[in-house]
Amino acid sequence: MKIVAAKAILKANDQLAAENRERFTAAGVYGINLVGSPGCGKTTLLEGLFQRLAGRLTPAVIEGDIAGQVDAERMSKIGVPVVQINTDGMCHLDASMIAAAADGFEYGRIDTLWIENVGNLVCTAGYDLGEHLRIIALSVPEGDDKLVKYPAIFQRSQALVITKLDLLPYSNFDVSRVRGDMKRLAPEAEVFEVSALKGDGLDALADWLVRKRHEPKRGQDSFSVQPGKES
Amino acid sequence: MKIVAAKAILKANDQLAAENRERFTAAGVYGINLVGSPGCGKTTLLEGLFQRLAGRLTPAVIEGDIAGQVDAERMSKIGVPVVQINTDGMCHLDASMIAAAADGFEYGRIDTLWIENVGNLVCTAGYDLGEHLRIIALSVPEGDDKLVKYPAIFQRSQALVITKLDLLPYSNFDVSRVRGDMKRLAPEAEVFEVSALKGDGLDALADWLVRKRHEPKRGQDSFSVQPGKES
Repeated sequence: MKIVAAKAILKANDQLAAENRERFTAAGVYGINLVGSPGCGKTTLLEGLFQRLAGRLTPAVIEGDIAGQVDAERMSKIGVPVVQINTDGMCHLDASMIAAAADGFEYGRIDTLWIENVGNLVCTAGYDLGEHLRIIALSVPEGDDKLVKYPAIFQRSQALVITKLDLLPYSNFDVSRVRGDMKRLAPEAEVFEVSALKGDGLDALADWLVRKRHEPKRGQDSFSVQPGKES
Repeated sequence: MKIVAAKAILKANDQLAAENRERFTAAGVYGINLVGSPGCGKTTLLEGLFQRLAGRLTPAVIEGDIAGQVDAERMSKIGVPVVQINTDGMCHLDASMIAAAADGFEYGRIDTLWIENVGNLVCTAGYDLGEHLRIIALSVPEGDDKLVKYPAIFQRSQALVITKLDLLPYSNFDVSRVRGDMKRLAPEAEVFEVSALKGDGLDALADWLVRKRHEPKRGQDSFSVQPGKES
């Protein structure tokens, strides 16, 4: 029987994540870890963003799922290089999976690497993947109480994208409550409101991403995020 | 540093779950483990069901959340005995938490113990809590591809409740696709379509629950579910 301590796993993950980040930075690739609940609209958000970013950023995507390749097929369809990771039951991606998957891309041809994490508001919070930016998507139909219930993942994100704004008339979602909770949990984070279906709000998010991508580098730290651990 | 093997944890959980189930059965309490994504409408479903089950079943609820007591407050408000479990970062409930929480109820005064699990389509699949019935809720805005992406949790449920049917006109959710996927993953499972907001479909689900609750017992096995392990 193999016995591995959780602490040792997390330490090894942090080391690998730091290596991933160095490799991405050296290759001029900006890494973005996109997290959120199952069905919060991560893939649809990417589809809408890539359209608006055409000619400005050249993306590739790593798709993380327990099983299947539904999302990877959607990316292929719009001509974006994609690698599908099937975690086979694991509830989050980790840095070693990203290291293996990122080998599948020609770094010279891309400048942004999107990582669509497994749909999960808990387990994804503790694992640094080597990204430069972590974005959390929260959809209107999920309800406005999610920041209170799952604080860690929001706290460790640099941007919150409220998705499916078109469903606002049919829900009791309070945008200002969510903005207030996010301000409390992650005061520096940006908040965006989008409807990928109607195309609302995507331009502002796309413009911000281009600015973030080209922010002046302050040594190794320029791209770094707070890795964060599960408490 | 404490080192614990995952296999040993799961075995210990199974043992504790079996003890929970025996205790519930002996006390005439039917245990129901309600799982689903964050924001799929589990608490709203319970609110609607308890109204319809009044006079037929007497419930208590264990609420599982990473943090906060939003859901427990909603249960208290409608007069249902409730114990809140804060998992403090853990992504699922386990049998030991249920054993501790269930001590808070007077078994003689209830006949159904609902366990609202942490919102998570992955980690909850592997942990038997000692329930007699596992129900999974999937909301329309989450999309109809969730059974393909998270098969284990659907496979190990005895009923699927499709929630937020009122949002069907504003989504491309294909109910027949979901019914087909569920038939393939869990051929014996019942499928219900509800809108807790409009009250649609709740009567059929309530009637079925009353029938399940009073199904003739065939020894210890009458209430038992397939515990299931993470693959």
